[in-house]
Amino acid sequence: MRYCKIPDEAVRRLPIYLRGLLFLSEQSKKSISSQSLADFLGINSWLIRKDFSYFGDFGTPGVGYNIEKLIKHIKKILKLHVGHKVALVGTGNLGRAVLAYPGFRIYGFDVAAAFDSDPKKNGRKINNVVVENISKLGRLKKGKIDLGIIAVPGDAAQEIADALVKAGIKGILNFSPYRIIVPKKIKVITIDIAMDLARLPYYMRSN
Amino acid sequence: MRYCKIPDEAVRRLPIYLRGLLFLSEQSKKSISSQSLADFLGINSWLIRKDFSYFGDFGTPGVGYNIEKLIKHIKKILKLHVGHKVALVGTGNLGRAVLAYPGFRIYGFDVAAAFDSDPKKNGRKINNVVVENISKLGRLKKGKIDLGIIAVPGDAAQEIADALVKAGIKGILNFSPYRIIVPKKIKVITIDIAMDLARLPYYMRSN
Repeated sequence: MRYCKIPDEAVRRLPIYLRGLLFLSEQSKKSISSQSLADFLGINSWLIRKDFSYFGDFGTPGVGYNIEKLIKHIKKILKLHVGHKVALVGTGNLGRAVLAYPGFRIYGFDVAAAFDSDPKKNGRKINNVVVENISKLGRLKKGKIDLGIIAVPGDAAQEIADALVKAGIKGILNFSPYRIIVPKKIKVITIDIAMDLARLPYYMRSN
Repeated sequence: MRYCKIPDEAVRRLPIYLRGLLFLSEQSKKSISSQSLADFLGINSWLIRKDFSYFGDFGTPGVGYNIEKLIKHIKKILKLHVGHKVALVGTGNLGRAVLAYPGFRIYGFDVAAAFDSDPKKNGRKINNVVVENISKLGRLKKGKIDLGIIAVPGDAAQEIADALVKAGIKGILNFSPYRIIVPKKIKVITIDIAMDLARLPYYMRSN
C-alpha cells in the first residue's frame, strides 16, 4: 500500500495516536469512536478524522475505528513497522537522560550505541550500552544503525552531524540549539527546549 | 496593541523567528527581506510572510522587514517582553541538563528555583541554583515564578503538576511521557523525546 504525502502537522500527531492506540490495544480494546479517542488523547475529534483521512478512513459508522488496523497503518506510514537502531553521541547529562529514557521502546527504537569524545567516559556502561570513543563512529555502517541523536555542546554539533552522515545515518534528532547543515536526503529534527518554553507564555492568562 | 488569535503552528515558529532576528540584530543588521530571512532560517518565505501577516505586515517593498520592530512585536505577542522566572522540579540527568542549558537566556527566562524529592540532593548548588526540598514548592507564590518545568519520573508527574498549579504557576513544560491533567487556565506543553524520534523514519529515504 502506498500513501500520499501527509502534511507535517499531521505527521507530528501520528506518534501521539500510535502511543494511545497501543495503550488501548494492551487493554484488549478492539475498536474506538473518533470522539472517545479524542477524549482519551485530548485532541479534537474533527482533527483526528481529518488526519486519518490522509491514509484512508478505517472507521465503521456506529462501531468506530478498528484499533489493530489503525496501529498497523500508522506504523507502516511512520516506517515503524520495522525496528530502528539508534546511535547517541554525547553522554553528558542530556545524553544520559536519553539513555535512561524508557519511552523509546514502544516505537521499536533501540539505542544500541553511544559515543563520547571524553576518553574518561569510554568503556563505561550506561543502561547496558558501552560508551565508545567518537573516533569509532565510522564503524556504524556495519551495525545497521540508521538514526542518530546529537546531545553534544552546540559548537561540536556540525562536526558530529558530518560524521554521522558519513557513517550512513539517515535521520538525526538534534538537541543542540544550532542549525546543522546536512545533505538534502538526510532528515534532521531539532529539539530546542528553550523554544518550547518560549511559546508557553503566549498561552498564559494574566489572572 | 492587541493581536488576533494566531494558529498554534504559527506560534510554534515565532520563537524560531525571534531567535534568528535577535542574532541578526546582534550583527547590527537593520532590515531583511522575507527571502533572505527564509534562507537564513531554512523556512519557506511564503510561510514567513503568512505568519507575519497575522500580526500586521511590517515589510516595506524593496527594503524588507525592520528587524528591531519585528523583534519587539514577536516578543510582545509571545509575552516575552517581560522576563519570566522558571521553577524546575526534578534534578536527575534531565533536570541537570535543563539547569545547564544556555539557550533560555535569549528569551528572557531565568531558571530561578529547583526542587527535588531526594533529601540527599537538597542544598546542593547546580549552576548557581540551590536545590530545595519539594515540600518547599508552596513558597513559589512569593517569588513571582510563573513557569514550571517537570523533569521527574512519569508516575510522579501529576502530583508535581498539582503542586505547581497550587503554587500559582501558569504554564508547565512537561518532560514526562504521561499526560497530566490541570485546570483549563493552565497551559501545558509536553516534550516527549521518543515522539520526536518516532516521526523521523517517516522522512527517511530508503537509499
